[in-house]
Formats: sequence, C-alpha cells, structure tokens
Amino acid sequence: MPEVKRIGVLTGGGDSPGINAALRAIVRRAHAAGVEVIGFRDGWKGPIKGEGGPLTLEDVSGILYLGGTILGTSRTNPFEKKERNGETVWEPTEKVEAIKGNLKKQKIDALIAIGGDDTLGVAHRLREHGVKAVGIPQTIDNDIGGTDYAIGFHSALATVTDALDKLHTTAHAHHRVLIVEVMGRDSGWIAVYGGLAGGADVIIVPEGPPEGSFSVDEVEEVIRRRLKQDKRFSIVVVAEGARPRELGGKQVASGEVDAFGHVRLGGVGYWLADELKKRNLPLTPRVTVLAYLQRGGIATPFDRLLATRFGVKAVELALEGVYDVLTGLRGTEVEAVPLAQALAECPKPVDQELLRVAKAIDIG
Amino acid sequence: MPEVKRIGVLTGGGDSPGINAALRAIVRRAHAAGVEVIGFRDGWKGPIKGEGGPLTLEDVSGILYLGGTILGTSRTNPFEKKERNGETVWEPTEKVEAIKGNLKKQKIDALIAIGGDDTLGVAHRLREHGVKAVGIPQTIDNDIGGTDYAIGFHSALATVTDALDKLHTTAHAHHRVLIVEVMGRDSGWIAVYGGLAGGADVIIVPEGPPEGSFSVDEVEEVIRRRLKQDKRFSIVVVAEGARPRELGGKQVASGEVDAFGHVRLGGVGYWLADELKKRNLPLTPRVTVLAYLQRGGIATPFDRLLATRFGVKAVELALEGVYDVLTGLRGTEVEAVPLAQALAECPKPVDQELLRVAKAIDIG
Amino acid sequence: MPEVKRIGVLTGGGDSPGINAALRAIVRRAHAAGVEVIGFRDGWKGPIKGEGGPLTLEDVSGILYLGGTILGTSRTNPFEKKERNGETVWEPTEKVEAIKGNLKKQKIDALIAIGGDDTLGVAHRLREHGVKAVGIPQTIDNDIGGTDYAIGFHSALATVTDALDKLHTTAHAHHRVLIVEVMGRDSGWIAVYGGLAGGADVIIVPEGPPEGSFSVDEVEEVIRRRLKQDKRFSIVVVAEGARPRELGGKQVASGEVDAFGHVRLGGVGYWLADELKKRNLPLTPRVTVLAYLQRGGIATPFDRLLATRFGVKAVELALEGVYDVLTGLRGTEVEAVPLAQALAECPKPVDQELLRVAKAIDIG
Amino acid sequence: MPEVKRIGVLTGGGDSPGINAALRAIVRRAHAAGVEVIGFRDGWKGPIKGEGGPLTLEDVSGILYLGGTILGTSRTNPFEKKERNGETVWEPTEKVEAIKGNLKKQKIDALIAIGGDDTLGVAHRLREHGVKAVGIPQTIDNDIGGTDYAIGFHSALATVTDALDKLHTTAHAHHRVLIVEVMGRDSGWIAVYGGLAGGADVIIVPEGPPEGSFSVDEVEEVIRRRLKQDKRFSIVVVAEGARPRELGGKQVASGEVDAFGHVRLGGVGYWLADELKKRNLPLTPRVTVLAYLQRGGIATPFDRLLATRFGVKAVELALEGVYDVLTGLRGTEVEAVPLAQALAECPKPVDQELLRVAKAIDIG
Repeated sequence: MPEVKRIGVLTGGGDSPGINAALRAIVRRAHAAGVEVIGFRDGWKGPIKGEGGPLTLEDVSGILYLGGTILGTSRTNPFEKKERNGETVWEPTEKVEAIKGNLKKQKIDALIAIGGDDTLGVAHRLREHGVKAVGIPQTIDNDIGGTDYAIGFHSALATVTDALDKLHTTAHAHHRVLIVEVMGRDSGWIAVYGGLAGGADVIIVPEGPPEGSFSVDEVEEVIRRRLKQDKRFSIVVVAEGARPRELGGKQVASGEVDAFGHVRLGGVGYWLADELKKRNLPLTPRVTVLAYLQRGGIATPFDRLLATRFGVKAVELALEGVYDVLTGLRGTEVEAVPLAQALAECPKPVDQELLRVAKAIDIG
Repeated sequence: MPEVKRIGVLTGGGDSPGINAALRAIVRRAHAAGVEVIGFRDGWKGPIKGEGGPLTLEDVSGILYLGGTILGTSRTNPFEKKERNGETVWEPTEKVEAIKGNLKKQKIDALIAIGGDDTLGVAHRLREHGVKAVGIPQTIDNDIGGTDYAIGFHSALATVTDALDKLHTTAHAHHRVLIVEVMGRDSGWIAVYGGLAGGADVIIVPEGPPEGSFSVDEVEEVIRRRLKQDKRFSIVVVAEGARPRELGGKQVASGEVDAFGHVRLGGVGYWLADELKKRNLPLTPRVTVLAYLQRGGIATPFDRLLATRFGVKAVELALEGVYDVLTGLRGTEVEAVPLAQALAECPKPVDQELLRVAKAIDIG
Repeated sequence: MPEVKRIGVLTGGGDSPGINAALRAIVRRAHAAGVEVIGFRDGWKGPIKGEGGPLTLEDVSGILYLGGTILGTSRTNPFEKKERNGETVWEPTEKVEAIKGNLKKQKIDALIAIGGDDTLGVAHRLREHGVKAVGIPQTIDNDIGGTDYAIGFHSALATVTDALDKLHTTAHAHHRVLIVEVMGRDSGWIAVYGGLAGGADVIIVPEGPPEGSFSVDEVEEVIRRRLKQDKRFSIVVVAEGARPRELGGKQVASGEVDAFGHVRLGGVGYWLADELKKRNLPLTPRVTVLAYLQRGGIATPFDRLLATRFGVKAVELALEGVYDVLTGLRGTEVEAVPLAQALAECPKPVDQELLRVAKAIDIG
Repeated sequence: MPEVKRIGVLTGGGDSPGINAALRAIVRRAHAAGVEVIGFRDGWKGPIKGEGGPLTLEDVSGILYLGGTILGTSRTNPFEKKERNGETVWEPTEKVEAIKGNLKKQKIDALIAIGGDDTLGVAHRLREHGVKAVGIPQTIDNDIGGTDYAIGFHSALATVTDALDKLHTTAHAHHRVLIVEVMGRDSGWIAVYGGLAGGADVIIVPEGPPEGSFSVDEVEEVIRRRLKQDKRFSIVVVAEGARPRELGGKQVASGEVDAFGHVRLGGVGYWLADELKKRNLPLTPRVTVLAYLQRGGIATPFDRLLATRFGVKAVELALEGVYDVLTGLRGTEVEAVPLAQALAECPKPVDQELLRVAKAIDIG
C-alpha cells in the first residue's frame, strides 16, 4: 500500500465535548509516525473551499479537556438528497470535485472525519469518488451505529445528571413538578441514561409506537402515586423529540405560531407543563430547558479516553490502509467497523435493557 | 433580660443553597450555649399549625453543603394584604393568634426566621404581637435590604456562571446567539453578576425606565458589531423580569395564550429569540432556561461561611435579647440591622457600579 | 427453586462512590418483586454479630449520588489465612457459624455482598457452608476480575482527572515538576486511565518486571526532552505501589523510619521528588497526594448507571436462584460471572492496550 | 497630568485563579479608553529583560475562567534584601535601571503589577525611581493588606472545600482520622475559611504564641470526644505552616533528613499522622496533601468578579494619574489603597472573628 505522509482532519455536525481530545491524539500519534496533519475548517466546508492548514503539536497542546472543536464545524454537505423512484439517494454536487481537487492540491493521503451520521455519511459516499477516509463517531445523542458509545455522549450525560442533582436538592423543599427538557430528536439515549443516573421519577423518550411515545395521563398517574407516598415533588425528564399521544404522536413545536405571532420554539417541556396545569395537581410545574448546555463544558474522563483511543486508532488505520470504516468501541476494544454497516444502524434506538432497568426500579 | 432556653427556627420563601448550613450553625451554637432548638415545618405554616420538633446535633450532621432546606418551606403568610385609603396594609389573620399560642405551648423564647422579604416581613410584623424574632436573609435574588449579600445568591451565581462557561466552549464551534434566561423578576443581581462572571456579551436586567429595560435593537446592534469583529457567536443573559421597549416596558409571559390555547409559560428568552429571528442575522438563536437549577445544588464556600456566620450571630442576638433585626453582612462584618430598615430597602436594585463595570469593558 | 422472600445485603472493603446507588437499586428492585431487604452493618461484621435491620425505600431515598456507604464497611473476615504445605488456604473461624446462625435467625434467603476481592472471596467460600450469595464488584482500583469495570473506578478517575486539570492551569505559570501520587498498590488502572484522561506527561504503574516498574532516569529523560521543546513543566502521575529500579524494584514507604523516629507514611511521590531534586533540573518538584480524595465525592453518571444495573441484576439473579456469581459488565451487558473465575483473575493487571496508547502518543 | 497612551502589565509571585480575568479586564478597559497594553513576561523579569509585547483583545478572549497566568510569572526581584544597622532594607540592583530603560524604550506611561507582597513591594519601591505603578493584589494565601480579599483566595477555598466534601462522604464509611494539609506558611486564612466551609472537626493555623500554634494533645482530645459521641471519624485541616507545641513551636519539615538520606519534603500533615499513631486511637490516620491543587483550576465567580473589578479600577486609576496604590476591596467597594499602608499590614493574620465562630460551633 502507498505510504501515508499527510493526513487531513475535519470535524462536522453539532459539536460535543471530546472532539478536541481526538484532535490532540491524532496529531500526537501522527507526529510519532512522522506524518503531517492538515486541519480543515468548519466540517466539509474546509476541504470544499480548501480552507485549512497544518495542525501541530503546539496547536493541540492544552486542549485535551476543552469542549467544542478548535477546527470549527458546519453542516455543509457536498451531496444533495434526492427522491428517485420512491428512494432517497444522495447525488454528488460540484463540491465533491472541489474536495477531490483540494485534497490533491494539498497532497492529503488520507482523511479523518469526526462527526455524526451526516458527516460520516459523506465520508462513506466519497469512497467511490476516490477519497480515502476513516470516521470517528461523535454525537451527544449517541444514536450512531457501529459503536457502543460516540464521543460526547457521556459528557452530555454529566450535564444532565448534574442538573437533576441540583433539582433534587431544591425539589424537596417545594411542591413542584420539575420538568427537564433534554436533547434527543429521534432517540432517548440522553433521556434514559441521564434520567436513570440523575434519579428522575419519569423518563420520556421519542421512541415508541406511531400513536405516541407517552401520554400525559401516565405522567399524571406517576405524580399522583408519589403524592400518595407523601413525595411532594416529581422530576420528569423529557426528550425534546418525545411524542405525546394527546397530539396523535406528533412532536411538539413543529411550526405552530404563538400568541405573539411568532413560530413557537419552546418545546415539549412547556407543552407538558401546560397540560399538567390543567390536571389540578397540588404541585406547580416548572420547566428547565438545558438545550446547548448539553453540548458544552469540559469532556468527562470517559470521553477523553474514548476520544484519545479513537484518534490513535484512526491514524493507525490510515497507516495500515484501512478506509471506509469508523473507529467503534466494542466492549473494551476499539475496532474498525465498516461505515456502510454503522450508517445502516442510524438512528440507533436507545438500549432497551436500560429502559427495562428503569421500569424494574419503578421509574415511570 | 429573661433567659433564653428554647429557640424556634423556620425557613420560608423560595429556598436557596446555604439554608441548611445556617440551620447547622444555629443548632451547634445553641447547643454550645445549652439552648434547645425546635425546627418548625414549612415556613410560617409550622408555627401556625404547631408542626415541628426538636432539631438536634444529629439532625444537622452532614447537611452543611446541601442545598434546599431540611425543614421544608412555604409561602404561607399569617397576615393579609389589604388596600386602605390607597395604602397597603398587612392585617393579622387568626393565624397570628395560632402562632402565639403554639410558641407559648412549646415554650419558645425566641424565633429565628430564615427567608426573603415576605418571610422576614412577617417576623417584623409579629413584633407588635409579642413575638421575639431574629431574621436571617436568604434569597438567590439578593434583592433584600440590610445586607450586602443574602444566603444563596453566590450559589445561584455559580450555577449561572457554570452554564455560561459550558456555552462558551460550544459557542465557538457554531454560528449561534445563545440566550440564557436567568432568575430575577424585579432585580438584575443574578443577571449582572452572573453575566460578568461568565463573560456574557449582552446582559439584560429588569431595572430601568418605565418604557423598558432594554430593546431588541440594542441587542441586535451588539451582535452585529461582534460579527464585524469576526465573532461568530454572542451570548445573551436575560433576567426573567426584563422589560422590552418593544412591548412598552411590560414583562413578557404575563398571561398570554399560546397556539395550543394554554397560558404561555416560556418567558422573555424565547420572546427575544423569536424577535431576533426576524432580524435576518446569520446566527441562529438558541434558548437555555435555567429556572430551578439556580435554586439547587450544593452551597458554595461563600454561602456556607455566610450562612454559618449568620446562624451563629442569630443565636447570639437572641441570647443577648436583641430582636426585630436581621443578620446583615456589612463588608466583612456581620451586624444586626433593624428589620424595618432592611425591609424598607426591598427590592434592593442591582449595584449600579457593577453595571458600570460591565459597560466599561464593552458588554452590551 | 425455593422462593426468595428476604435478601440480606452488606458492603465491605474500602468504599467507593456508587455503592449507595447499588443499595438503592437493590431495595427498589426487591420492593417491586415483593421482597424484603435487610441491611447488615459494617461488612461481614454485620452478619457475624447479627447487626442490621430492614432497608426500606425511605432509607435509600436521596442516596443515589452519594459517595460512601450508608451501611458502613469493614475489613472483617470470617476466614483465616493459613499457609499449609506451601499453599495459602482460608480456614473458617467460628464466625462462619455465627453468620449461618444469624442468616437463619433473620430468615435471609439470599445475600448480596458488595465489595472487592476480599469481600467477594468470603461470599465465595461461604458457598460450601450453605450460604447463597451474589457478589457486586466495587473497588476504585478496578483490579477485580470478571467485569470490565468495578463500581467506583470511574468516580476515582474523575477525581484524579480533575486534579490534573487543576495542576495544568498552574503548571504553565511556573517551572515545576508536579508529581501526583494516586492509589494503586498492585495495579495501575487509576494511574493509566487518570493520567491519560488528565494529560500527564509521565505515567508510572506498579506492574512490571521484578527489578522495578520504572526508573528515575527515565522520568528525568522525559522532563529534559520536554524542556528542550520549551515545555517549562512536567506532570508525573505515580501509583502508590510503583517500584523504582533504583530501590531494586521494592515499593517505597514500607516501614522505613524517618528523621523524627517515626515510620514514614509518605510514599513514592515524595521519594521521587527527593530523587529528582538531586538531578539538578531547572524545575522544582512539588508533590500532591490525593489519598482518600479518590474514594470520596459524588458518584459519576457512569458509576451510578453501573451500580444501578448491578443492583437490579443481583436481585434478579437471587430471584432466579443463581448464586456464587458476581454481576459483571461485559461490553454493554451485565452478566453473571462465577465468583471462582472472577477471583482467579485478581489482581487484574491494567489493560495493556491503554498503556500502549499512552506510549503511542508519546507519554513517558 | 500627562496623558496615558500605553500601559504595561506583569504578573508575579505564586499564581492563582483569577489573574487572567484581571488581564482580560485591563485590556478591555484600556481598549475602551483607546489605550494600548503591553504584557511583560514572567513577572519583573519581563521589564528587566525587555521581554513582552502587545496584549490585544484577541489575546485575552476566552481566558476569563482560566487559572494560571498567560503572562507567566517569576519571583525575580530587582531589589536586594540587606541588613543594615539591624534593619532590613531593600537596595536597588542594576536591574532597576534596566526596568527604567525598558519602560522608556517601550514608551510605557504606567505599569500595572499583579501579585503578592513581594511583587507589589517592588512596585512600591520603584516609585522613588520614577516608575508609576498600580498594584492588584493576588495570592491564594489572602495575607496581603489593604484589601478584604486578594484574587485567588476564594478559588483556593473552593478547592479545599471540595476536597473536604469528598472526604466527608468516605469518612463515614471508615474509622479514620483524615488529615488534610493546606497552604498557608504564615497565615491561616485558607485553613480557617476552608475548614469552616468544609465542615472540618479540627482546624490548625500557623498563628499563635511562640511556643506553638497547636498541640497534638488537643487534637487527640477532640478526636476522643467525637468518638464518645459515636463519631467514627474526624477530619483535621492543618495549614502547612502550623507549629506544634511538641516541637517547641517550630514549623515542621524545615530541612530534616529522612530515612533515605534525603531532605524531607512531607510536612506537618504526615508529622501529625505519625504522632497520632502513637496515641493508640481506634482510628487510623490518612493524609491528603493538596499542595498545588490549591493554585489551580478555574476561577470562582467571586474571583472573576473581583479580578474584573480590580482590572477595570487599575486602568482607571492610571488614567486618573493615581499611582503607588493597590486596588482594594473594602466591603462592596473597590478603592485605591496606598501601597505603603497595604504592605505594612503584611502578612495579614487571619480574621479572628472567623476563628471565634469556629470555636463557637465547637470546632477544635
């Protein structure tokens, strides 16, 4: 196989804590192998526009713990989604040629793409255009296939758990239903793991039958049951993508216009609070919306270790000439998983066993 | 003066981290003086209903750092607000007699009331009904007079600052206006202190002229100025009580009905995001609502020390026969401040010097 | 199989964050199955002396995040270590009979033992005395077999990583070698995982050839190499059980007497600092000894989830009549692993792959 | 007064969290006034060697929360300490001329020196050599006069308190005396504030009569008293400069040679543990040495606000032509305090009222 002398790297999609740790590991591992690293700016926009430059040991010094990504990110996609004969296909735009041209001009032998299913999907589709890429999965949603955990998930979990801990201390003092809206448009990973770790009384995920992933009735029932046990509060974790049966299983906040004539941004958390208010409970609902807090902060040790291992492995795969794969955590091992296989599993639904555990200890 | 043998204590109003540290100090200080402590449940409801019992060294062991209050809280008020000849007067209800009766029955020589202006206002008005009380100021809003800082304010500040730190790491990666709605119905203490400590780019408080405490135009201007400096994000801290000029200086979320036919809970943060969306900025707004997170969590060292000193001082004042005062931090000293004087200053507006400092370093 | 109506539980060995989360899960899972839980005090001392009582939903409410163990712990062992024909055997003492008697008296159908290899070793040896037990592995050292991770390890890791983060911010400002002594008498799990996650420049473990697990020469070399790269500081993580080649591979602090005539407690961290001082480096060494900090604090989300799953699984195994096993994490699954097999692997040496990753990114 | 167009800034002494926040405020405030800032490297070494360069808005962006100092620090002193007629005098060396020359060459109109008593002492003595300087007090020890609190103290406090919180969770589980050695060579600020905030059972400071600041007998007594109250652990906070009566009031670790023939670094914490071991307590002592952890980490909101205010004030004082002062916190105000007056108070002994409060709630 041809020798690898220069590796390009980019970070795409919504960012998450741990990306910088991966960049640091990539540069350090490449340096140890005598390989140069070029960092592209803002996801796929970088190789499309040819924006990027050398990423040195100096550049990645001190970034191990830092959230965000020093390379910036974007959702730019060089392919276009089309419907053809009832099927979704991704057609290359002229940006694909731009990428090829820029990689050639910059003498990039291999590319490492860090991102979620969109970013890694591009990496996979570029294969047939001659681009050799290794993917590193990162998404706080953890809904990407081919790996037990993506970079960022455990850090988002830490933020959610910390928020629930905080609410617990004050919940005891008041008569409240404290509703916490967490991320998760399609999958309940953050809600279930965060809710379990943070001791939520009700956990609501997006997954479930078409008619809805939860009902207000069920939530009310748990709250009333707890009231009978003399629990003067309840804590509800709800994923932003949760689908109330009362709305026919549709997600909340999908374009409705509010009293000010604006499109409503506030999501399912507020909706649930409004509904519970109508139930005449002796508890007032209060809503916390974590939103981008979940993307931010410092990376947990778990994510730093995972990202470091992924970064090292990605460089080593490139050195070995193994492409069109992502670095996947399987148990305690980091393995190369074909991108085609990993992407086919997206969005990976939440681990049913964890949901079962939640029910088994009487969480609603 | 008559000897004090038994002190009652209660905690009222919205809770905040540090109350438990005060309770611990009260019990320990009283114990050292051979004085018993009776803890009443749920604010003024406790002495009204006679609900409470001994608070021992054992009860307060291990609660130093804990948010919330082990005594519970309520907003029950034994006085009734009345308008008379255009003036607000507080008239005693039969609950005042109940309090007197229960304090007598339980042989309470002095009362320590921990709370905000409502709770301490009751303590003050009970004076003419023969109840001897010392107040300890606690409110995350810090809008109570007679003290530089109330218990809980610095802990709420820690939560807000931590949230802004988290947002900063991810803000760099995206093109976003990140709006953080913080507590403060009448005063901007949390917004200004938190915004300054967390490096916000815009800080919006409730204080200001009747026509509004801020305008969307000004916010837009800061964001556009930053864009010209190549800053791809802006972080806006807005107090829940902020009053947009565009709404004639009224607070947002005051009963409007949303598209679902429910009273809208979401406040000024979402409103501002909606408005900014109409300005065609190249940045998407995202809203975080911290809400009850600000009440929760562990108390900061500052609040533990303050609460410990307040608790010790309150007991000592009772032992000295000094009543109708609150424990106030004045510089580095804890002093007795007459409740009448302290209450007359409520709500204490945010320190203008801090606002000036913010402007002086170019925060919008 | 006979129905299980009452389960006993105990916690032994050095404690670690997450034990309480396991206790909570056990009680909640048992409650859902209509099974009573008896909590024994202070490890095996509890069933020996018959000290313990019902553990209710109320008892385990609010302990999810709390480090330590509400049951207390001890290192009491009902078996005695003996050498016989050159082999180590564990002989039952009269305490074994006491355990059997007390379990019978309290009508305990099954026992759940939470602890490290000592505690679980007892559970295993009691099998032939008719005691039916399920083990849950907990030890911050992570050196127990049969599971990828024991409860507590990730929380200890968080403490070490946080300490290294703190040191990094100040290390830049000074010319220092900052030495951090971490736990790990026999294995380097905390040192390697913590060192990698915290960005240490040198990581020293106890594992290695008899002649020593490291040498001062090597440490000096890394420091000097970094000085040439204009790095004005180095951070060294050293496991307490590290064995310097300069001392013939013996562990430090094993009974030597210091200048005051006392047995020296301070360990390898100070020893290393002393040695480095003699090397005339332009950097002054400073030592931090984390010691019991690593056992304390709140449990990380990872440990809470692991502990919750272990607790649920342990009860379910008892309900199914599966004994003499521990709950082991294998990838993302929690499985029953025979205690004999798990104990045979103790002390489980640190994952060689992580050591390799450390070397691959140039950590000394 | 002559117009100020360019301000120089330097940071000296042991660093502490918050310095960077001060640098950010200085640059932003200066920028708003159209004033340039030159940042000198490594304390007084910078102006001596002429090492430094422009400090821009870009340079100070994102450093608000960061511990350490982006300018580096040193203990270089352009004056020499001499004994003359029994008095200590500081004589200028040729470095003073170098400073004057470099300030002139770089057209520095005013200097801002951030540091402890050494660094600010130089600023003061340079006045008679024509250098116009404003000081900003920073030291985690908080022993500098002229201000209620120096930058860094509250952040160090947070680290100590967090450590004590961690130890509390595990202390319950074991029979231990947990000894925590904290910083404070001459003053007990960290020990008392940290010990009170963290719930220590014994607090030991350096201040006290010549014959010693504490005795092992007293410590033993507290531990035994607690044992009688069925408290199975005690937590002891000891300042590194504590002086045991048993050693005639001398500080520990002052050059003794240990069993390996090395100068002993380990300090009073280990010494105390050794002594307690000889007392046959049913509790084993364990020592944690926080050391440089106390300098590191992110700055607390308190320190960021203080540093921001100090930075703004220092620039404004320079603009007003007020020199030879430091920015001092007095209550809630930041004022200019003559350096001569502030330095005369060094080392500022710990607030006696806080010691009294500790005793009043029965802390040993």
